Amino acid sequence: MTTEEFNKKAQELHQKTPGKLELKSPLPLNTREDLSLLYTPGVGSICKAIANDKSKALQYTSKANSIAVISDGSAVLGLGNIGPEAALPVMEGKAIIFKKFADLNAWPIVIGTENIKDIIKTIKNISPGFAGINLEDFAAPKCFEIEAELQNLGIPVMHDDQHGTAIVAYAALLNACKVSDKDFEDLTVVVNGAGAAGIAITKMLTDFEGKIGKKVANVIICDSKGIIHRDRDDLNLYKRELIPYINTGNLQGTLEMALHQSDVFMGVSVAGALKPEWIKNMNEKPIIFAMANPIPEIYPNTAEKNGAFITATGRSDFPNQINNALVFPGIFKGAIQNRLPNINIEMKALAAHAIAKTIEPTQKNLLPNIFNIELVPNIVEAITSYAKSREVIFS
Amino acid sequence: MTTEEFNKKAQELHQKTPGKLELKSPLPLNTREDLSLLYTPGVGSICKAIANDKSKALQYTSKANSIAVISDGSAVLGLGNIGPEAALPVMEGKAIIFKKFADLNAWPIVIGTENIKDIIKTIKNISPGFAGINLEDFAAPKCFEIEAELQNLGIPVMHDDQHGTAIVAYAALLNACKVSDKDFEDLTVVVNGAGAAGIAITKMLTDFEGKIGKKVANVIICDSKGIIHRDRDDLNLYKRELIPYINTGNLQGTLEMALHQSDVFMGVSVAGALKPEWIKNMNEKPIIFAMANPIPEIYPNTAEKNGAFITATGRSDFPNQINNALVFPGIFKGAIQNRLPNINIEMKALAAHAIAKTIEPTQKNLLPNIFNIELVPNIVEAITSYAKSREVIFS
Repeated sequence: MTTEEFNKKAQELHQKTPGKLELKSPLPLNTREDLSLLYTPGVGSICKAIANDKSKALQYTSKANSIAVISDGSAVLGLGNIGPEAALPVMEGKAIIFKKFADLNAWPIVIGTENIKDIIKTIKNISPGFAGINLEDFAAPKCFEIEAELQNLGIPVMHDDQHGTAIVAYAALLNACKVSDKDFEDLTVVVNGAGAAGIAITKMLTDFEGKIGKKVANVIICDSKGIIHRDRDDLNLYKRELIPYINTGNLQGTLEMALHQSDVFMGVSVAGALKPEWIKNMNEKPIIFAMANPIPEIYPNTAEKNGAFITATGRSDFPNQINNALVFPGIFKGAIQNRLPNINIEMKALAAHAIAKTIEPTQKNLLPNIFNIELVPNIVEAITSYAKSREVIFS
Repeated sequence: MTTEEFNKKAQELHQKTPGKLELKSPLPLNTREDLSLLYTPGVGSICKAIANDKSKALQYTSKANSIAVISDGSAVLGLGNIGPEAALPVMEGKAIIFKKFADLNAWPIVIGTENIKDIIKTIKNISPGFAGINLEDFAAPKCFEIEAELQNLGIPVMHDDQHGTAIVAYAALLNACKVSDKDFEDLTVVVNGAGAAGIAITKMLTDFEGKIGKKVANVIICDSKGIIHRDRDDLNLYKRELIPYINTGNLQGTLEMALHQSDVFMGVSVAGALKPEWIKNMNEKPIIFAMANPIPEIYPNTAEKNGAFITATGRSDFPNQINNALVFPGIFKGAIQNRLPNINIEMKALAAHAIAKTIEPTQKNLLPNIFNIELVPNIVEAITSYAKSREVIFS
């Protein structure tokens, strides 16, 4: 298929129904008796039971398995700030993935304001009807504040662009170590891009909260101005709080300099950001994750020609796709099924390990296929064990 | 079935799934190609098309047929202010009725604040993802302000407790006139109860906005303090604005006095509010709509023993149920299908006439059965004719 044919096919599919979502009821509604049981007066006793104990909403209503997929449309795909309506096709896409792989009912909620306080208040206000909230395509740095302010709702709230990407990249890195015979804890990782995903990846790799008990040797993170180090005075709050955990040698300079004697390039930045010749200065068996979408920091064939041992991208048309759809259905299902009040860093690390161990990895197959039927159950099992013991055990 | 058996059956049904709603996709998601067309990268061109013209969301997304059923749980059934979680079973009930009778996808949104400004802002903020908004079970008088403030969103927003009830009561009254050989425009109607439904009924019967071109001779509306008249100084804004349109003789006193020589008792008040002996002072062939739920202002058999010619209630276990489920699926479908920006009083009157003409009424069958397959199409047809001509024609 040419790109034109592909887009035409996508358009035809999207306007068929239109859209990708429909509601159905698992219960019949064919008679007056059905109606009286499911609507008034039958709902009366159900409403009363929940009024007396609101946790009963999880027993009697679809809240039990419902997720709100929420966006303000401020950072959609590689398209930027395209607004709430234009974000809907992505949110519906997430909803069908939640249904297909985790049997969760997700509904898109797009928000017509970009004001942070209003966004937070709106999400809080509509939260009583949902068992979980997937934040999606909120621009950095506001995504950090929005997510942080919603952690006390009592239900899991996760910004997938940060943590979904971070978890799957982490899983891919675990398996890349296995394939390249490197020790995870000896790695020097260069993260290029200090937005939503870059910061989340860095926090996982450095065990920022000290709760995973496992970290790489050093992370050097670069933004558009070069290496982030303690002497820079242009760092926002979110970059600044990383300082004690990164760049152990206080290296200063460019991405090119950061890559000297590093093991891993972890790109969440822009097309073409990685020059082929820089790979030659990396340690042996360089690992290159070029996750910029739709055009990666470097194409896999170019990277491999210049010495890359393992390459991964965000794209489905190359091997080793770092796709957050591998994790969000399972981690939300695990959290919701166990009624966990949030998705913490321990659960993220456990999910990454569960993804990694789902297959025996090879250079061109670091990660399980999304259709792998063991994937979601493995993640759910890891979260369930954690819920029972509150211990982080990487098996 | 005893009440206990009935409640047990309702509980069993509600905890089976649990709840009454499930999501499904009308499109297959079985292969990597499906995924690439419906999620990234396929959604990219769809998002772009909508970013350039946001009305295209109606062409490419499920917004086209989606309704938010929104409540703060402040006035649920006869149960009062039971909160957002406890309102969910009713909202889900409305959602399955929307699906069954109008093929619209409705999703419950329950709001965890009772602050009017916050409620309005929250609903505005989440409106870009929906084609219509059904407000439900908001207490009076805040329901009036909330609904009014949302009329400029560009999509239909209707508070069903006000207008659904008013439209169906109006339809029942049209047919009651037919059966009792009374002229609608000669009627004196006593509305008992000046809450959400009472005020909406009064506005329709008096052609408050002067847009229907048809009204009853006189409406006397009573609240808990008796007849509403121009000399009372305890009236809220919503009662006060009715004054020029009601109570042509400036009658003062009790409900009992109001009923003297009236044709219709329209009760949206409380159990037992209508004393049997008062019916005897009404004009011949009294019409008694006793819509208090679950216990009516008077039971039909008592009313009939005391001279009522026609009786109706809100209950499914007596003849002539005034049930707003007769109208909300059709009126929203008609409005959404024709992309009308709101549901105005002309459309409400047209819907009432469409409901009324769906059957040849009799004393015990004033209204069509909700399962009548002509009902929703008749309402949609009336709204569609209006959308084309912007003329109100009662056929």
